[in-house]
Amino acid sequence: MTDIQRPNVVRAGHVALTVPDLDAVRTFYVDLLGLDVVHETDDALYLRGYEEREWSLKLEQAGEAGLKHIAYKVWDESDLDRAIALAEAHGLPLRTEEDFERPRMVRVQDPQGFPIVFYREAGRHQPRLQDYHEHRGPGVLRLDHFNYLTPNVAESLKYYRDALGFRLTEYTEDDEGNRWAAWLHRKGNVHDMALTNGTGPRLHHFAYWLSEPSSVLNAADILGGADWIGSIERGPGRHGISNAMFLYLRDPAGHRIELYTADYLTVDPEHEPIRWDLNDPRRQTLWGTPTPKSWFLEGSSVEAIDGGWVEQQEASLHGLPQNVR
Amino acid sequence: MTDIQRPNVVRAGHVALTVPDLDAVRTFYVDLLGLDVVHETDDALYLRGYEEREWSLKLEQAGEAGLKHIAYKVWDESDLDRAIALAEAHGLPLRTEEDFERPRMVRVQDPQGFPIVFYREAGRHQPRLQDYHEHRGPGVLRLDHFNYLTPNVAESLKYYRDALGFRLTEYTEDDEGNRWAAWLHRKGNVHDMALTNGTGPRLHHFAYWLSEPSSVLNAADILGGADWIGSIERGPGRHGISNAMFLYLRDPAGHRIELYTADYLTVDPEHEPIRWDLNDPRRQTLWGTPTPKSWFLEGSSVEAIDGGWVEQQEASLHGLPQNVR
Amino acid sequence: MTDIQRPNVVRAGHVALTVPDLDAVRTFYVDLLGLDVVHETDDALYLRGYEEREWSLKLEQAGEAGLKHIAYKVWDESDLDRAIALAEAHGLPLRTEEDFERPRMVRVQDPQGFPIVFYREAGRHQPRLQDYHEHRGPGVLRLDHFNYLTPNVAESLKYYRDALGFRLTEYTEDDEGNRWAAWLHRKGNVHDMALTNGTGPRLHHFAYWLSEPSSVLNAADILGGADWIGSIERGPGRHGISNAMFLYLRDPAGHRIELYTADYLTVDPEHEPIRWDLNDPRRQTLWGTPTPKSWFLEGSSVEAIDGGWVEQQEASLHGLPQNVR
Amino acid sequence: MTDIQRPNVVRAGHVALTVPDLDAVRTFYVDLLGLDVVHETDDALYLRGYEEREWSLKLEQAGEAGLKHIAYKVWDESDLDRAIALAEAHGLPLRTEEDFERPRMVRVQDPQGFPIVFYREAGRHQPRLQDYHEHRGPGVLRLDHFNYLTPNVAESLKYYRDALGFRLTEYTEDDEGNRWAAWLHRKGNVHDMALTNGTGPRLHHFAYWLSEPSSVLNAADILGGADWIGSIERGPGRHGISNAMFLYLRDPAGHRIELYTADYLTVDPEHEPIRWDLNDPRRQTLWGTPTPKSWFLEGSSVEAIDGGWVEQQEASLHGLPQNVR
Repeated sequence: MTDIQRPNVVRAGHVALTVPDLDAVRTFYVDLLGLDVVHETDDALYLRGYEEREWSLKLEQAGEAGLKHIAYKVWDESDLDRAIALAEAHGLPLRTEEDFERPRMVRVQDPQGFPIVFYREAGRHQPRLQDYHEHRGPGVLRLDHFNYLTPNVAESLKYYRDALGFRLTEYTEDDEGNRWAAWLHRKGNVHDMALTNGTGPRLHHFAYWLSEPSSVLNAADILGGADWIGSIERGPGRHGISNAMFLYLRDPAGHRIELYTADYLTVDPEHEPIRWDLNDPRRQTLWGTPTPKSWFLEGSSVEAIDGGWVEQQEASLHGLPQNVR
Repeated sequence: MTDIQRPNVVRAGHVALTVPDLDAVRTFYVDLLGLDVVHETDDALYLRGYEEREWSLKLEQAGEAGLKHIAYKVWDESDLDRAIALAEAHGLPLRTEEDFERPRMVRVQDPQGFPIVFYREAGRHQPRLQDYHEHRGPGVLRLDHFNYLTPNVAESLKYYRDALGFRLTEYTEDDEGNRWAAWLHRKGNVHDMALTNGTGPRLHHFAYWLSEPSSVLNAADILGGADWIGSIERGPGRHGISNAMFLYLRDPAGHRIELYTADYLTVDPEHEPIRWDLNDPRRQTLWGTPTPKSWFLEGSSVEAIDGGWVEQQEASLHGLPQNVR
Repeated sequence: MTDIQRPNVVRAGHVALTVPDLDAVRTFYVDLLGLDVVHETDDALYLRGYEEREWSLKLEQAGEAGLKHIAYKVWDESDLDRAIALAEAHGLPLRTEEDFERPRMVRVQDPQGFPIVFYREAGRHQPRLQDYHEHRGPGVLRLDHFNYLTPNVAESLKYYRDALGFRLTEYTEDDEGNRWAAWLHRKGNVHDMALTNGTGPRLHHFAYWLSEPSSVLNAADILGGADWIGSIERGPGRHGISNAMFLYLRDPAGHRIELYTADYLTVDPEHEPIRWDLNDPRRQTLWGTPTPKSWFLEGSSVEAIDGGWVEQQEASLHGLPQNVR
Repeated sequence: MTDIQRPNVVRAGHVALTVPDLDAVRTFYVDLLGLDVVHETDDALYLRGYEEREWSLKLEQAGEAGLKHIAYKVWDESDLDRAIALAEAHGLPLRTEEDFERPRMVRVQDPQGFPIVFYREAGRHQPRLQDYHEHRGPGVLRLDHFNYLTPNVAESLKYYRDALGFRLTEYTEDDEGNRWAAWLHRKGNVHDMALTNGTGPRLHHFAYWLSEPSSVLNAADILGGADWIGSIERGPGRHGISNAMFLYLRDPAGHRIELYTADYLTVDPEHEPIRWDLNDPRRQTLWGTPTPKSWFLEGSSVEAIDGGWVEQQEASLHGLPQNVR
């Protein structure tokens, strides 16, 4: 495999979810969080944050909630060919798909069965960043990253870091040197994707970037005011890992979304990854309340490339971290 | 006059303005700044901030822009009788009026001709402070204070401080001991009203309280985004006086409104007023750009109790402060 | 008792605590939270917030942690005489004390045994509000309020509301009409003191005002950065009651301090108190994580006027609210 | 020149300035702005922001204030060889230098005479991002970009965009299609460097990133509190271009530093540059006060590679934009 050129992945691009009740998720994402509607059909919504020039979230009506795929934008059409060659070299299931304003999506099932898409071309729109007078909600700006639950973080790292060239910025390790979680990026901040030990493959969460910590508080105020506090699973708080201010929400379909801001730049060639001890209480939350069990245990099922759900395997590492309520 | 009991003034209560174009000011105050509409008629709007339980701003269609009156809420109906007795003792013009949800308003023309109202009873409404999901604009919370242009600050002080019992918190003085401006309160923060040397009587501005400095920035972003930057006259900045973060706007009728936050508590019985030298550059703006001349020179004409406008007199003190652009 | 004039209480004035390790609390209050040292002796520290002109926190070395007293500032020396007359009429233990820059403190043990002081005269100092370049920590500005654990909220209300003239702004009630907690003020915001049902008399917490919500986050960052996360008991979050952003900390002696900001104005004569149902989850936290049990169960013992600790009684109302972790 | 591979520039790396009074600039950068001292000698200071792992600002005592060079970090040592080959192909003066923790700096004088350095290896240090308890000042996090005054923007673009591969994100153009200014990046946000029409070559400013808009206000408060308001040249405000919140300061040597935050992501391969009309008032400031003339006219002289200052040429485009005070 050594002579296959890596596809040049630019950034986390979009997420496509199924939801049983499209109206309920519209209330959540559009009316309360304020995402901008790029396009809609009878059974799907295509949304974006205010600074984005492409849609970044597709919500599709279906019998059950699940993840269709997450998608990475690549630099050039030739990178799609490289992604195909790499998948074939790894013996991974793949096919080409299309969607609204996404004429060529290369869909691959990663070595743990997680559905990922590579795409380059997309319909482009004027950003709405400076239409401040029309902003609604806390000011959701752009998709930032994905977090996977994988039964084998070490194996997943081989694909994402070694084969695809994602760069490691932080990781969690126990005293025996087992990696429990890893944060990897392409676009120059802490992550485009993270790997978390757990029953999987499942989607743990996807995250949108807000402009500042007070926007995260505003999101909580809006949900509290609207009597949607049941949607707040964890936070607001400050992660030790990534330094980000965060708020984790569960949408009406049960998918987890993180509102995220204030991490740091990671573009240096020699950027030294930060190691966190598994039981360092500041790792999960530099400050704040203990993490609820649901946050560790629950995630979204992922669609198999040939239909149905990918079968899940138990995590290779067992036990919850401390500091869980 | 010494045996007349002072009326117990509680706080700045409302402002009533005339405007030549009600639709234009509606866009400004309701659509952009997000004030809540309590009531409207064919030719008037009654608005409030999100934490208020009474309307605090009346905008009335009329041929010319001007101030009908500013109003102070008093503790008890008997305080209205005291306000009348005090006005009569000073030989001031007065009459009783009413308006929507204000059944008894005692209107007095102060010694310099400025129209002020005292009222107690008002229609009360549920506050909307925690309806965060329905907030629009920067989050305007409550009326904070008025600022008068008076030709004679020293004379005005005799009425407001000595006769009505407003308490002095800060003042500007030149080397000869002339008072150029004074800030006075009843409700326990820096001011309910301020007196500024200038051609008068005129209304310099009225001010609403926002919850925090970043809300002031948000107001500027909203006006910038909507291409209403012409409405921004001065700021954002930090006043030396009052310590407040501020932004001065001119509404489509030319009235000046300040968005204001982060001053301090002044309830102590021995609260020592702060003296500022007239030419201390940190007085007007602890930091920020020089104040434009329009801010010093322009204000709203005030309605006479018997119709027409109160005739204006030149200021007793001459010259602009330094640090003006 | 009807012919005793009420003392005119202006505001919450100071709190005097004993601590077993003065160096540890100095690190917490001075080095981390940044309170300004007004005065110190071998066995005591006198601190203030940046906008205060008097000290507001005394920490005194002693064998055990406890509350010596909380103190209210009154309008005039004659109000101290009224406070004495009122205490005598209620048969309450009282004595006169003095302390650094507090020449006359009238100390009373309230009907439930809680030690309160009334004082008027105090040493005055220049505020440090605008010495921004010398501010340390999150910017603690002024003492805001006290919260008492009382075995009988209804009885305590008779003294504070009916006899002393504190004004009710919000309260918690169960379906039978029992009052579990009440918030009362003198200075014009939500409270100078609150009463909470619980084993008492004990001090639940005292609170300082910060300028804005992001300052509360900064406090958490500072404690997280310094590896003092064990001192964070609850929050940051937004109270439904009072609307305030909050963070509850435990100092090294176990006393609970709240950092608090962004409540609302309450000066209107007809200000309508807000009723909260005991089990409304938005009451304690409009958003945020469940409240830990320690927050409901723990408090500081209070010193008896004749030495030793005031004996505690069980709460008259039993059971914890829901939404506790 | 077409067969010379471009050096892979990663980001703006550091700036080296001469100052006549090192103590005065230490007060400004270290005591007030809180930059972290990495290293110091008798005649130089090496500073960094809290998230940086290398020093990013060198201040060197000298007879006159000027710019020694600005520096770009490249991906690999081989990129330094490419930078040399490219400079030779363009006939640009060059030499190799070293400095503290920078063993190999390739110094080139660009086609307009501006001194730039390329380096890869640097001494690395633990970031101090989460040492919140030890942060001082407004929280300066990392170097963000440089802004050059060039007599010929079009010519400069040929070198930086076409030869070095910087990517254009925004530009200012007049009705005749003349480019007055351009913003170009390598690291994925709006810019690592900008070109501004003006007498040059001179350094217009260098900019550091703060975490959020309220940090920019805090910087202004600190300078106001310390009576250093003379150092504030422009702002705070919001740029139309870049969307950033900004504050421009002049250090005691006259160098201009910008505090900057809240721009946007620019990594997409098809990222469409934004065109601004030269006289669009929202370009310079989406909101805020007019820009002072000094901001347009003044800049730092740049050191010639063979000693002395590079001779300056008049700008090729004449006239100031409107909206200048």
